Amino acid sequence: MSPPLSAQPVDGLPSVEALSPGLLKNVMSPLWWDAEAHVLEMVDQTVLPETYRTVVIDSAQATFDAIKTMVVRGAPAIGLAGAYGLVLASKAALDLPLEAYVTHLHEAADMLVKARPTAVNLAWALAEQRQLLDRLVASAQDDDTDLAPMVIHAALLHHARWLHLDDIERCKAIGVHGQKLVPKQGAGILTHCNAGALATGGYGTALGVIRKAVELDPTIKVYADETRPRLQGATLTAWELARDEIDVTLIADTMSAWAMQQGKIDMVVVGADRIAANGDAANKIGTYLVALAAAAHQIPFYVAAPLSTIDFDCPNGEAIPIEERDGLEIAQIKGQWICPQTGVAFYNPAFDVTPNELISGIITERGVACPPFAKSLEKLKH
Amino acid sequence: MSPPLSAQPVDGLPSVEALSPGLLKNVMSPLWWDAEAHVLEMVDQTVLPETYRTVVIDSAQATFDAIKTMVVRGAPAIGLAGAYGLVLASKAALDLPLEAYVTHLHEAADMLVKARPTAVNLAWALAEQRQLLDRLVASAQDDDTDLAPMVIHAALLHHARWLHLDDIERCKAIGVHGQKLVPKQGAGILTHCNAGALATGGYGTALGVIRKAVELDPTIKVYADETRPRLQGATLTAWELARDEIDVTLIADTMSAWAMQQGKIDMVVVGADRIAANGDAANKIGTYLVALAAAAHQIPFYVAAPLSTIDFDCPNGEAIPIEERDGLEIAQIKGQWICPQTGVAFYNPAFDVTPNELISGIITERGVACPPFAKSLEKLKH
Repeated sequence: MSPPLSAQPVDGLPSVEALSPGLLKNVMSPLWWDAEAHVLEMVDQTVLPETYRTVVIDSAQATFDAIKTMVVRGAPAIGLAGAYGLVLASKAALDLPLEAYVTHLHEAADMLVKARPTAVNLAWALAEQRQLLDRLVASAQDDDTDLAPMVIHAALLHHARWLHLDDIERCKAIGVHGQKLVPKQGAGILTHCNAGALATGGYGTALGVIRKAVELDPTIKVYADETRPRLQGATLTAWELARDEIDVTLIADTMSAWAMQQGKIDMVVVGADRIAANGDAANKIGTYLVALAAAAHQIPFYVAAPLSTIDFDCPNGEAIPIEERDGLEIAQIKGQWICPQTGVAFYNPAFDVTPNELISGIITERGVACPPFAKSLEKLKH
Repeated sequence: MSPPLSAQPVDGLPSVEALSPGLLKNVMSPLWWDAEAHVLEMVDQTVLPETYRTVVIDSAQATFDAIKTMVVRGAPAIGLAGAYGLVLASKAALDLPLEAYVTHLHEAADMLVKARPTAVNLAWALAEQRQLLDRLVASAQDDDTDLAPMVIHAALLHHARWLHLDDIERCKAIGVHGQKLVPKQGAGILTHCNAGALATGGYGTALGVIRKAVELDPTIKVYADETRPRLQGATLTAWELARDEIDVTLIADTMSAWAMQQGKIDMVVVGADRIAANGDAANKIGTYLVALAAAAHQIPFYVAAPLSTIDFDCPNGEAIPIEERDGLEIAQIKGQWICPQTGVAFYNPAFDVTPNELISGIITERGVACPPFAKSLEKLKH
């Protein structure tokens, strides 16, 4: 099956081509749409940095699995994967009658949204696609015109690509706003996990700030902690920064407070998976610990995220669901056991919540929100 | 060469046999003197938990190497290794004239003390042996009697064994004092790194407290963090506790603060490598971070250590030398690279210092010192 590849013009949606003259050039992206094969491709983030390998994702189920097993990860990136995943669901149902096609898409979206619970971007991107779907259907009903699944399909693909390119633009705007917060020439900047190009459409949120800052001051020193259990700091952030020839020092998760005490860190910037309306921020497990250490050393602690990461329906951190993952992620590193194989239990929360009072500012594509966040985030929203 | 194995009675030293009726029974020890082969044996802590293997240490140089490469680690245990190491130095020099023999021993002690800089117990145990040596030499000079190296040798061996058994008794006393601090039935107790039987003569300091507490309340839940870069929590503490059928849950280093926030932790107890006169405590890297998290959650944070770990000549934490180790410890886990092999720098401090204001109490064999520690530690000393 080979649907037409040129995205058809859809009323009310910007043209991808108009939006992105050369935008993807020189931007590493963790996933992209292969317009010839009409499939999604992803960088397999489970085998970096030893192996750079891409995988072909050809169905909504495969998208779900890729998100679940963290072939793709990072809040904005899994949002985009979800948006493309719905296009793949559509591709498999183009021959259905409209009503069955629409039902199929909603079922696929219901399935995809469950892949990971904490990052709100997945739900957000799927809601974007659902809204588009509903709008097209309603519009056709109003006009009493026939609507072919193929038209919806083209619109969903167009919108997924638009969301993708838009995310990169947002990251670049986050970088521009965030770099102004770097406190001095040659600053030491600590980041946790990977909120980089690999976690977004491209360029990165926290690493977007760092990329822009380093562009203006190449003497900046970046510290990446390794981020157990999945070691994204070592495997992804160090890889991404080394690839861009940015000065990066890897430390163990145990070392952030001591590095601060030794005067090596002037600023912390991390990403987020979901930010509550009051500014409480869920991010990769360990972020809270780094925030406590930063507060104890009076070091500014910033969260960088697009507005799509802010869940205005979520009043505070307590309302954010925290995913718990398999204990084997702790027990094994690269398939090797690091602890006894019997007699040991595991506790493996994948995220924690940093309370808003530990956050100096939230860097978005529209500017930096300062405390109190309930007000400043609301203001940025409009 | 096979020196006489029965320790000769030495004036002013307690009899090992009198001290230790059955003391080593049911106590796992990370090292012991093989009286038949007249060598030191050690559990190779670099290959646990996959492999339980002992290695024979037959010279002062081999002792130095074993300490340096962490075949044996833990402040009290490396002190004992140093004391036995000097016996091995003696064994190699028994045929020398007395003066040359004594010089040889002092040179060996000078070498051994440099194996690792942070733990004061190594210097303390070697000073104990040197004092014994000097006393025997001075006493013979005073009496104008001949002193055979073999007599000194027997005394050094006797004293090393005495220090070893004495350390176990101290650990057990630490356990008795420390268990009284457990705040409730079924408490969750977090420990960092390994301050267990494997880190001491046997039984453990922090794990001595936990062993005694679990003996009295088997519903206690122990949380061990894995302690990157060398993973002693996963490889040693989890192994030791699982072996004793103690309820142990392994978490990543990133998870301590969140486990506290979730109400899982009621008390933290860790060991120490050197405690300054004011109570500032150097311990495995990451301890400071756990202490900050405990303070933020109003959870009591205790340091358990024998008085030999307290360096009264060291006024505060700033005076404690902090060892930096090879970046490969961060870059590789079990020989596998976890980050790019080029373009990444490393910072690998092996210890950090927890300032006294974050410490609720220091548990010693003579009781629990409370803040202000400058006074309470001084009082316990006498």
